[in-house]
Parts: sequence; structure tokens; C-alpha cells
Amino acid sequence: MKKIGILGSTGSIGTQTLEVVRNNRDIQVTALAAGSNIDLLEQQIREFKPGLAAVWSKEKADDLRIRVRDLPVRVVSGMNGLMEAATKGDVQILVTAVVGMIGIRPTIAAIKAGKDIALANKETLVTAGHIIMPLIRSYHVRLLPVDSEHSAIFQCLNGERENRISRILLTASGGPFRGKTREEMKDIQVEDALKHPNWSMGRKITIDSSTMVNKGLEVMEAHWLFDVSMDEVEVVVQPQSIIHSMVEFEDGAVIAQLGTPDMKLPIQYALYYPQRRYLPGERLDFSKLTEIRFEKPDLENFRGLALAYEAGRTGGSMPTAFNAANEKAVSLFLNRRISYLEITDIIEGAMREHRFISDPGLEEILETEQEVYQYIESRW
Amino acid sequence: MKKIGILGSTGSIGTQTLEVVRNNRDIQVTALAAGSNIDLLEQQIREFKPGLAAVWSKEKADDLRIRVRDLPVRVVSGMNGLMEAATKGDVQILVTAVVGMIGIRPTIAAIKAGKDIALANKETLVTAGHIIMPLIRSYHVRLLPVDSEHSAIFQCLNGERENRISRILLTASGGPFRGKTREEMKDIQVEDALKHPNWSMGRKITIDSSTMVNKGLEVMEAHWLFDVSMDEVEVVVQPQSIIHSMVEFEDGAVIAQLGTPDMKLPIQYALYYPQRRYLPGERLDFSKLTEIRFEKPDLENFRGLALAYEAGRTGGSMPTAFNAANEKAVSLFLNRRISYLEITDIIEGAMREHRFISDPGLEEILETEQEVYQYIESRW
Repeated sequence: MKKIGILGSTGSIGTQTLEVVRNNRDIQVTALAAGSNIDLLEQQIREFKPGLAAVWSKEKADDLRIRVRDLPVRVVSGMNGLMEAATKGDVQILVTAVVGMIGIRPTIAAIKAGKDIALANKETLVTAGHIIMPLIRSYHVRLLPVDSEHSAIFQCLNGERENRISRILLTASGGPFRGKTREEMKDIQVEDALKHPNWSMGRKITIDSSTMVNKGLEVMEAHWLFDVSMDEVEVVVQPQSIIHSMVEFEDGAVIAQLGTPDMKLPIQYALYYPQRRYLPGERLDFSKLTEIRFEKPDLENFRGLALAYEAGRTGGSMPTAFNAANEKAVSLFLNRRISYLEITDIIEGAMREHRFISDPGLEEILETEQEVYQYIESRW
Repeated sequence: MKKIGILGSTGSIGTQTLEVVRNNRDIQVTALAAGSNIDLLEQQIREFKPGLAAVWSKEKADDLRIRVRDLPVRVVSGMNGLMEAATKGDVQILVTAVVGMIGIRPTIAAIKAGKDIALANKETLVTAGHIIMPLIRSYHVRLLPVDSEHSAIFQCLNGERENRISRILLTASGGPFRGKTREEMKDIQVEDALKHPNWSMGRKITIDSSTMVNKGLEVMEAHWLFDVSMDEVEVVVQPQSIIHSMVEFEDGAVIAQLGTPDMKLPIQYALYYPQRRYLPGERLDFSKLTEIRFEKPDLENFRGLALAYEAGRTGGSMPTAFNAANEKAVSLFLNRRISYLEITDIIEGAMREHRFISDPGLEEILETEQEVYQYIESRW
């Protein structure tokens, strides 16, 4: 019986992780952590019977504690609660599916407690890759990517660990506004941006997909995960999202992973790696699929991706500035306080204003985030 | 220093294997075998300095022996010579690149002598897979596919040996006559059939590609190599030959190998497996490659593929009958003695007339070949 914990159990990745657990019978969920959706968390506790449940809000935690008093579950709250869930003694694999930089501290604590990490929190590597990767190596734990693209790359690298990667070809759908100019994107509303052509995901990541900022974060993540430079990661637009990513080796061979868009596959792969298991669902049908098309990413109109490359190449605290600015900007856009194109304007402005630190520690990373937030709040 | 022998060194795979050897500096060729092209074989002996050279024709061997008397090479001939080359003491990997069933005996001898086999001879597995595969296992040698499709599958299976294959997706270019009806193919001449759109290969295999008989032989080979049923191998037409083949696993994930069409890649991969090496040559450029298209194979107009599935499903001596009939028919076509469509008519006729043996030994396989030849000779 494999024992797992899930940080962010009520979100998109969290609930799909629990679907994977439900479809198999040899995984036990011993810790769950959620932000504030205690209705769903209560259901999850009743179904999966973890020994520990963490809720971010203290008030909601108190409420939940009363609701589940018939069950042998301890309910904790705040950052301490999240840390407790991340390091719980019997957890073997921790699925980190919280959104935002809140995921970094518990991830570090979990690594130090010897847990394998199934990583679905982008910010961890984007902002603190230089801290996380050495920890992964020195604590001999596994870092298992859950993102569909990074899981694809990870699958392509199976059996190839000794071989030099010459390029990672990170595929991108291009999002709902692929092919549009900035001029054509200026009146985009929240509702338009929330319609992703291929994947059903959380709101923030759906907006990030539409701006291609998400792809930029993924390039930075790939750079850390697979030990390649930013320029060895090439974004290939592949609108149908059939090829989930590819790796080119020294001999020119390209290994690709393809599939229908279903996040349960990378989740299950991470939980059972290197073993594959039957997964119910649609299969690729090459008699119906008539073509896979490729395009170059449009870095002029999708400035978010160009800025991500710039941030990643600069390194240090710049990816944190990029990420924090984007987080804030997307939140302003979702609250209808800025226009769609202002998202990248804000990122660019924040990066230009950012007081760069070349090798930031965790405290400096978190301070950078706050500074960027304040800068944006003071101006928008 | 890795030591290899090459059976069929003057053919297409043989010469490309020597190119790979030339590009690297840590492979020594200690045995070469060729049919009759002693001019090229002499050059190869002078460049690569093997200790043994086998020539099929005794007369040509005598001639060559005189020509290379200044070199420390022993020249042998006939089946005994071929067997000697296959089992030479210092050979570690034997590249079996002879065309036809002549490759089976030396391959068996090499396996029994503990050599790893880099297999480029299709007939070996098609006709004697049930004999070869158990030998490979009991002598603990490696069977390394050199065919581009099988190498692709082999690469996709890297790191996945413990995982169940649900389907092999064997890609096919569809050949130069893809999309044509039988009616439109009836006047095809030798020159037309020798023009392959993507690959430059020997004459016999180029004809086999145009009829899709080659793909049928590959399906049978894949069945043996990867321990899947004939119906678990699905042919996917992919006219650009960018995807060299794919494997689908239980979880629905599809792993594919892509590349430019260059046989040196699978050859080098087999010689250095599991290590990859730099290989000079073109790389896939996804900014120029705008699409990969897929089609279903046309089993009605390309009867060769349908007959191959039938032969493979029947098993026993039927694949030998299929293969021998095709070999003879292609030779008749190349000699302009039959029309293009008669190739598959002859195969079908030979299969219908064939006296089926369910578990043929090597002798029976070779007898089947002769019987099929005689049947065809008596009628065409």
C-alpha cells in the first residue's frame, strides 16, 4: 500500500489525483490539505479517510473540525498545518498541487523529510529551482513532474538518463488566441480567456495558457527539472495538444509522448513511476486523427513567453519577479481591474523595476514576491 | 574497442554500417561477408582491415584472394564461409544485412556462438521467429533491430520493459503509389516502382515498399521482436516518414520516435545500445515542418499487406510461403517477366496452394521456400 499526501486536494489536480486513487486500490491517502473549500474537503475526508487534514483558513479549519468529529482525523490550519501535512510520517509521495509560492516551504520541508515529490506546483521550480534541485539530490528523493508536458519529457527520458539531451521540444497549444495580433487581443474579456481549446484546468492557469505565460513558466521548470539551459528548451506550437512534448538526443533521434488530453495520465504516471497501469479513458485514434500541425510560437504578440525566456536567462530573482507580477496581474484581470494586454505590460514593468538578486535565498525570494506585489498595487 | 562482423557488407545497410564505423573510432570490423561485389569488398578490406572476408561465389572468392594477398586477411566462400564469418571468435555484434533466407543459418550459428545480433535481415524473424526468439533467450544474447521502424519501437520501449504494450503503431510511408487503385497500378513499370519518396534502399526492398509487402513483413517481425500478436500491431500511414513508429501502453500514453530518414541512426543505435552518440546529419526542424499527416492503410488496393496479416495470423510455415512467393515474384517483376499487380497475385496463389506445416523446423522452412519457388517457376 503506497501512502500519499495531497496539498491542494480540492483543486483541479487534487481532485483528479483522488480520481486516480479511486481507480486503483493500492494507494492510501493519509494527508489532505486545502485552501478554503471545506465542503469538498469534508467529502474527501469521508471517502478517503486521511489521518490529517489541513485547511489554510483557521476559521474554516475550526468549522471543519466540528463537521468531521465523528472521524479519526486531525484538522490543522495555516502554514504550520500545511507543513505538518507535507511532512506527515507515513506519507511516501507528496503531491504538491497548491497554486502559488505558498507551495515552496512545504515542498522543501517534505524533501528534507525524505518524501518523493509529485510536483504540480509550477512556482516551486520557477522561483526556487536553484534551492530545490540540490536538495532533491542530497536527500535522494524523487521529483516526479505532474504537468502534462514535463511528464511527457520525463517519459521520453525513460531509459535515456545516460544520454545527453540536445533539445527539449516543449509543445504548446498556443491557447485560444493563437494567431491573433496584440491589436486583436485588446478587448479580450475574462470569459473569452477562460475558454481553453483542449484542456480543462483551474482559472489562473487557463489565463496563463492564453497569454503563453504558462508556457514560459514551463520552459523555466524544464530548465531545472532536466538540467538544460533555457535555450535548449524550444517551444513548438502544436494546436491539437496531441504531442505532449519531445526530446531530441545527440544522434538526432526525437522521442515524443502523445496522448489524449487527460491529466490523470501524468498523475498516475507520477504515482506509480516507472510502472504504468491501465487507465480508463479515450485512446488516440490515428484513423480519425488526420494530421498534427506545427507552428513557431509568436513571441511578438505573445510577449509573456518572450519575457519568460528573458527572466529565465537572467536567473536569480528575476523568475520570481516575473511570476509574482504575473500572479498579481492575472488576479487584477480576473477581477476586471485591468485589460487583457495589461497583464504582460505589468509583468514587463515589474521586471524592469525589479532590484535583481543573483543568488536569492528562500527569504529573499519571498521578499521579492512581496515587493513586486507592492509595486503593482501601488501603480494599478 | 567493440568488434563487429557484417554479413552483406556491400549492400545498402552494409555500406552504411561501415560509414557509422568510419565516423566513430572505437569499432573494429573483424569479419566482412558479401555476395559477389568483390570490387567494393576489396576496398572495404583495404580500409577496415578485417581478418576474415567471405564471398558467396567460390570463383569470386578465388579472384579476391589473389587481389588482397598483400593483406593479412583470410578469404573464404559459400555457406561455410558465411558461417565462419558469422561465428568468428572475436566478433561481439554481428550485423546481419544479407537479403533473403540465406541469412537464417548464419544468424542461428552466431546466436549459438554468443554473438549479439544487429538484425537487418527481415526473413530471419518472418520465417523462423519461433526458432530464433527462444534461442535469443536461452543464449542470453541481444537482438538489436536495425530496421528504422523496429529500431524506433525498440527506442520507445527503452525503460518500459516491465510495462505491458497495448498496441504497436507501425508507421508506413505508403510508398510511391499511395492513394492509387489497383486499376491505376496495372501498368506500373520497374522504373516507377524503384522511386521511393523518402528512403534510399536496395532494389528488392524498394519494390516491397511500393507494394506494402515490406510493411507486412515488418508487422510479422514486430510480432516476434516485441512479443505482441499480429493484431496488436497497427499500421499507420504517415506519408512524410517523420514518425518512425510508436508504442501505446496500458495507460493510453503513446511514445513515438521521430527523425529525418537516415538509416545510420538505427544502425548506430544498435551498435552502441543503450548509449547514444553524436551522429552528423540533418535534424528535424519543427519551424519548417508544418504538419504530420496520418491515413489508414488501404488493404483493398494494397493486397500485399492484407495477405501478410493473413500469413502472420496463420503462422507456422505460412509466413515462409508468403515471403518466398514475394521474393520470387519481385525477382520476376524486376526481370520484366510479370506485371506489377501479378506480384500480389502470385503471393496469393502460392499461399492458397501451400501445404501448411504448423511448427516447422529449419529444414522444413527451407524446403517450403524451395517448394514455393518451384510452384511459381512451374506456372510463370
